[in-house]
Amino acid sequence: MSKKRRNSTTIFDIANEAGVSASTVSRVLNNSMPVDPAKRAAVLKAVQNLNFKPNLVAQELGRGRTMTIGILIPQSASIFYNTIINGIEQGLELTPYRSLVASSNYRLEEERKLLDLLVARRVDAIVTLWNQVDETYLLEIAKEIPLISIGRKLSGLEKQCLVVSNFQGAYQATRYLIERGHTRIAHITGALNVPDGMQRFEGYKQALRDAGLEPDPQLIVEGDFEEQSGLFGVGVLFTRGVRFTALFAGNDMMAMGARLGFYRHGMRVPDDISIVGYDDQPGSAYTIPPLTTVRQPLTEIGIAAAQAALNLIENQEPNLPVLNTELLIRESVATVVRNDFNYKVYSPS
Amino acid sequence: MSKKRRNSTTIFDIANEAGVSASTVSRVLNNSMPVDPAKRAAVLKAVQNLNFKPNLVAQELGRGRTMTIGILIPQSASIFYNTIINGIEQGLELTPYRSLVASSNYRLEEERKLLDLLVARRVDAIVTLWNQVDETYLLEIAKEIPLISIGRKLSGLEKQCLVVSNFQGAYQATRYLIERGHTRIAHITGALNVPDGMQRFEGYKQALRDAGLEPDPQLIVEGDFEEQSGLFGVGVLFTRGVRFTALFAGNDMMAMGARLGFYRHGMRVPDDISIVGYDDQPGSAYTIPPLTTVRQPLTEIGIAAAQAALNLIENQEPNLPVLNTELLIRESVATVVRNDFNYKVYSPS
Repeated sequence: MSKKRRNSTTIFDIANEAGVSASTVSRVLNNSMPVDPAKRAAVLKAVQNLNFKPNLVAQELGRGRTMTIGILIPQSASIFYNTIINGIEQGLELTPYRSLVASSNYRLEEERKLLDLLVARRVDAIVTLWNQVDETYLLEIAKEIPLISIGRKLSGLEKQCLVVSNFQGAYQATRYLIERGHTRIAHITGALNVPDGMQRFEGYKQALRDAGLEPDPQLIVEGDFEEQSGLFGVGVLFTRGVRFTALFAGNDMMAMGARLGFYRHGMRVPDDISIVGYDDQPGSAYTIPPLTTVRQPLTEIGIAAAQAALNLIENQEPNLPVLNTELLIRESVATVVRNDFNYKVYSPS
Repeated sequence: MSKKRRNSTTIFDIANEAGVSASTVSRVLNNSMPVDPAKRAAVLKAVQNLNFKPNLVAQELGRGRTMTIGILIPQSASIFYNTIINGIEQGLELTPYRSLVASSNYRLEEERKLLDLLVARRVDAIVTLWNQVDETYLLEIAKEIPLISIGRKLSGLEKQCLVVSNFQGAYQATRYLIERGHTRIAHITGALNVPDGMQRFEGYKQALRDAGLEPDPQLIVEGDFEEQSGLFGVGVLFTRGVRFTALFAGNDMMAMGARLGFYRHGMRVPDDISIVGYDDQPGSAYTIPPLTTVRQPLTEIGIAAAQAALNLIENQEPNLPVLNTELLIRESVATVVRNDFNYKVYSPS
């Protein structure tokens, strides 16, 4: 996107100046539909007042642009996806483009319908978050409309896909617990039928193996990324009667569910049990105690996706950056101190 | 909305059956634009296979309908607003309508631009959440497009506005603390430049007065609905050196911030301090301890708004229900037990 356009007057400014709606401005500039003569005069006056170069926007609209970026998300009531959307909005803030969001609530059929809806609404680009639509269908759409895929790799469209390594983040989290002296580290996984859950599970196992520890199936419970499964997972671990001093949860929501499970059993965090989460979702800095977690750069992901979408609209390379996870050390992990008597005590790290 | 339409085949079903996009179906049904002959044949075959009555949808589209409900929210990264959006989606689920969401991120100028964008995208109805646009401008839009306003009353459009009483909810919360024996009840308010914050503040004061307690300015700190202001508010209360046994926070996010403040001072909840929040946002059932709070029926608000918008589209009365708050008693409040020696101890209620 050229710097020139970023700073230029938009049809919204004209609309405000003229006291008419943006659609009226677009009708006047395009001569596309009849407009009330007084309104037309007001628009043309505003164009003059703002020293507006109508050719640019008229040209955009003439090329069929709607100045809209469509976003498809898997769930509306999720602070995780919505933090990314907020990043996309930040990325569009200084441009005339605005975003519209549609949510499938994890229903595959609905995802496809909503993609059709965005296409029918003639958005200028589409950003999808962790969608599960047939790849063939997505590739068809990508031929017609600039497409950026967050959280999912598409064959042949790698440059338009932004995926932050789950393996690496999970490895970091598990490695950190090992460095703090933990050897019995439980894992409540995310949903294992989606790549994120599986890749974090793999990162956990690899970190253990690289430290000479064999993953113990008794310490692993499958969750589904929701709080309830964290609470339930702790119940399962206790029922198995296995000993563990730390838990790596597949995301922060499950870490919070697990936290409540430990509270129910009278266990203090981090004194009796250490916890590491994943995502650093808003609110994780305010858990009791504040949660040590793997930060996904959610806002940065959104900003990068917005810029890449704008680049594609301008027929330029998407230029998506490589974004990495980061371990945020807060207060939910204690160091295991061993003395000569092989007796274990904990001290906050 | 008639039952008949709810169960009928949609253009999306036709699109799926024919293996084409929804926009292609709409072109064929409307004869609006040239369509590839093979695709046209596929659409017509699908219409026959599904025993589709094309008149209905053709008529909708012919009347200029886009089968889209536009939603304007103040902030994208907010679990509060997004839970309502989820309700709207539930309300539209069995209809051919889908929603598109735009977020202003609390910028007034942006709210107006996004309203213009939704109008320009020719949505069939608009649902606004806690917007602050000039009332005159909103009333102008409401003349042209069915409008439902959540969280804000508009003069002359009362039937299209859904506002849940903040006063009542705050009164319930404070009253409950008084009934549990608390007389020194602090309040961290929401932002007082918006009605919700102010009305909750009023409800708090009225409940105290009705119990013969005069609100003490030393116990009141202004917050802004964000976690940080809850944490900060506790700091202010401690700095003032005032005694209190309970806190009513203007929303759950501030309750969580305050909770961390008490944790930093080594105070246990509810043993040393009781807390009541407001909203029952997702996650509040998983705080340590689970938070007693005033439940706003967020999902029901969304469902009701969706149905009212559909009613307006059909030129019927919006029929918005009256929705009330509910006190959810969890584990963050203890009962103050007084004995003859005027000595205070606490027991979980």
